[in-house]
Amino acid sequence: MNGAQALIESLADCGVELCLANPGTSEMHLVQALDQVPRMRSVLALFEGVCTGAADGYARMSGKPAATLLHLGPGLANGIANLHNARKAGSPIINLVGNHPHYHMGYDAPLTSDVDTLARNFSCWIKSSSTAQSLAGDGVNAWTASMRANPDSQGQISTLILGADAAWGESKGKVSPPAIPKRATVDEAAIRDVANVLALGEPTLFLMEQQALSADALEFAGKLAAQHGCRIMSGTFPGRVDGGAGRVKLERLPYFPEQVEASLAGIKHLVLVGAKPPASFFAYQGSSSLLVPDGCQVHTLARVEEDAVDALARLSDLSGADNATISRFELGDMSLPTGPLKSRHMLQVIAASLPENVIVATDSGAGNAAHPVCQSAAPHSWLSLTGGSIGQGGPVSTGAALACPDRPVLALLGDGGAAYTIQSLWTQAREQLNVTTVIFANRKYNILNVEYARLGVTEVGPIAESLFDIGNPNIDWASLARGFGVEAITVDSCESLADALQQSWKTPGPVLIEVLC
Amino acid sequence: MNGAQALIESLADCGVELCLANPGTSEMHLVQALDQVPRMRSVLALFEGVCTGAADGYARMSGKPAATLLHLGPGLANGIANLHNARKAGSPIINLVGNHPHYHMGYDAPLTSDVDTLARNFSCWIKSSSTAQSLAGDGVNAWTASMRANPDSQGQISTLILGADAAWGESKGKVSPPAIPKRATVDEAAIRDVANVLALGEPTLFLMEQQALSADALEFAGKLAAQHGCRIMSGTFPGRVDGGAGRVKLERLPYFPEQVEASLAGIKHLVLVGAKPPASFFAYQGSSSLLVPDGCQVHTLARVEEDAVDALARLSDLSGADNATISRFELGDMSLPTGPLKSRHMLQVIAASLPENVIVATDSGAGNAAHPVCQSAAPHSWLSLTGGSIGQGGPVSTGAALACPDRPVLALLGDGGAAYTIQSLWTQAREQLNVTTVIFANRKYNILNVEYARLGVTEVGPIAESLFDIGNPNIDWASLARGFGVEAITVDSCESLADALQQSWKTPGPVLIEVLC
Repeated sequence: MNGAQALIESLADCGVELCLANPGTSEMHLVQALDQVPRMRSVLALFEGVCTGAADGYARMSGKPAATLLHLGPGLANGIANLHNARKAGSPIINLVGNHPHYHMGYDAPLTSDVDTLARNFSCWIKSSSTAQSLAGDGVNAWTASMRANPDSQGQISTLILGADAAWGESKGKVSPPAIPKRATVDEAAIRDVANVLALGEPTLFLMEQQALSADALEFAGKLAAQHGCRIMSGTFPGRVDGGAGRVKLERLPYFPEQVEASLAGIKHLVLVGAKPPASFFAYQGSSSLLVPDGCQVHTLARVEEDAVDALARLSDLSGADNATISRFELGDMSLPTGPLKSRHMLQVIAASLPENVIVATDSGAGNAAHPVCQSAAPHSWLSLTGGSIGQGGPVSTGAALACPDRPVLALLGDGGAAYTIQSLWTQAREQLNVTTVIFANRKYNILNVEYARLGVTEVGPIAESLFDIGNPNIDWASLARGFGVEAITVDSCESLADALQQSWKTPGPVLIEVLC
Repeated sequence: MNGAQALIESLADCGVELCLANPGTSEMHLVQALDQVPRMRSVLALFEGVCTGAADGYARMSGKPAATLLHLGPGLANGIANLHNARKAGSPIINLVGNHPHYHMGYDAPLTSDVDTLARNFSCWIKSSSTAQSLAGDGVNAWTASMRANPDSQGQISTLILGADAAWGESKGKVSPPAIPKRATVDEAAIRDVANVLALGEPTLFLMEQQALSADALEFAGKLAAQHGCRIMSGTFPGRVDGGAGRVKLERLPYFPEQVEASLAGIKHLVLVGAKPPASFFAYQGSSSLLVPDGCQVHTLARVEEDAVDALARLSDLSGADNATISRFELGDMSLPTGPLKSRHMLQVIAASLPENVIVATDSGAGNAAHPVCQSAAPHSWLSLTGGSIGQGGPVSTGAALACPDRPVLALLGDGGAAYTIQSLWTQAREQLNVTTVIFANRKYNILNVEYARLGVTEVGPIAESLFDIGNPNIDWASLARGFGVEAITVDSCESLADALQQSWKTPGPVLIEVLC
């Protein structure tokens, strides 16, 4: 058994069931190994950003790492933007990056580059010195590292950069899977500190991220909110929150700093549960980076790497909240507006059309704007743009569909963002994934118009205007979709949007809906 | 004048005439500056790999750096694959990467990442500590560095990572352009050494790269070849060589190691002119990395950073070659084959259809195969895939067209490679660039079939086969092109390919030709 086969067999034994691949020559022995280990499903993408973003979406929905198979430094580089988003989501991922053997590195062959340094930007675990004998063990260590929470995230990205000689050389056979790393338990003192805060009855807000947004954690947080009258809130762009009718009522931190300040005004105690203190998404001239209100005390119930579910459970018990009645989102107005696609009406159509248990992946302003509206709609999982790197939504929705073949998936994408990784449609078509992609085709980078106005610029000159305008020429999204093998429809009214959405849920495989808005 | 405007004014004074932009919020002051400095042309791309690849194509044709405008770590990351190719081409480029101010970095805002480390993979010059006062000077230093040859390349990539506060703060005004860095002159001893080699009359080959492939350098090399009966050869994938009828006859190093060994067999003296010793593109089990024949002496006429043109001129003079009659490519058979698109016929149609002075950018096996055939066709400039990272050809052809608006441009792309950066079509449509894109739609990663067979695998299993197959579903390239605003035609015969090419040269703006082959 060569190194490549020992690696793939060992990862499969760890429970890695999916490899998102865009291989090249240096990965041929890994391809051969994948051919011999069909229990790890191999899915091809036309661009590496689709592989990494899909691995992120898969991890958010399954809690498990997928492997990616990438071709040296440039292949890895193409995947970094979505690995950045995955890192912020705390998604476990195992990157397998083929490389030249070390003995080949000194000759400056065309694909030679400094892959290790590249990987440092997003990886918590890197190894690039594997031999054929060590490779399977290195893969298992990569898996263990990916499942370990750290001070930034609930899961991690491992990057195993392997010379072709480690893949083709004779191995010592496969390596047994280790135990899943356990989270540290929160000290009793931290629980008591927050219980004491709650007993004060002062305005208190729990800011929740990462593991603290799991369904179990939210149930306990809901009890605490009900018992003590405190607020519970997620960060602005959480990796995954399950919302909609029946789910625990949860606020979401707004985007712009002045909105955050307004929302947090009057809060005396900010309790962090798997979260960091709120900060402005971008820095603005004359504006604060840190958005903790003056006079507000910050308490940490659970650090990111600690067991937030357990901490919330113990706090609920200690503070007498166990029998409190949780406030839950309720099904709201499900009427379908008609007429032109005004923003409010468009979002209402989407909310009213959500099928039960849908997974929503967003990558756009309109997608985010749909979130609050959809909390009064069908129960769902919502996957946000965690790292601000647009081009996430298509790949993440692809990976979510691979993780959950029985659930419908809805990608709500801006046209600007969708253009980055439009190749994800092809993988959706190839694998016949049940993804409905809505493109909000407003034909501009609209957020930049907003941000430019925030500089105080009142007159936008022709060059600036051209840099925010993607309507010259117009992108024909239906034509792009068909080009990649995906059925498409263009809509320009509430009725046609509602019809297209209904039709898409009935149609197996992917559909794209271009919304002229 | 704020830092951003001082920077853009200073770069424009250095002669930077083009900015390939994909900006975000942190770059708003740079956009404002571009709006105020119209002598620097701002061109928008939908994806950063288009910006960086276009900057590469622009540099190869103009010898000058363009600026790119990129959005923090993820924006830079999306551009790295084509920066890798640009680095191997020795193209000068100035990346302007917006970032958070340093004071904002500690709060782990979503777009925070380690941009400096990312930039190390491909940059020869990096600065990320600019203030508003230093920014213009830092930009000028970035320009100077980009124009400086180094031991790897004739030009370099500079990356200026600038906090938004350096852009918005008050500057000291613009900074004057410095002189263009000069290359070191080759020592007389090196010239004499090679002259002595030539005097031996033994089998000698000049391997030429980077500046040594400029038209001036090739004229002198042609004289040396004619006088002394030595061979002159470029590397396998040079950044730019001007070829075709009337141009100096030049061989090209083959791709596979056994082909290189066969081609170099019997050579007693290998003379490096801006080149490194030939090495295998990939490492193969049981095969050498270094491909210098046994018993062959290696001599260096000019190191990459030295003045190769001057060295060749002096060698020509010293060795009495100045009046030798250069052997030049001659116009060959320009007949147009008919019938099905067999490989040989397809390439002949392309060669016979080349318009005078065309710029050809390739990114595919068929594109490379067209190169020798086209040497008997119209004079042209040929831009190869320098770094092996596919997805280069579309962006490079876009940048070449921006550099040379009066010349036709032909992109010869594989379907696999074209899918990486298909967004380049939109920029071609927006700027109405005269680019004809030929997609060789064989619906597979064909090189991987070849490389897999080289492993000795005789039976390709279904998983491996699926990972080499991009024909499920078929990509409809004409539909993709129209989606991005580019006219398209699909051809399946020699006649229809010839007609489509002729038509494309008559049509202003971009055209895509999907070749079913």
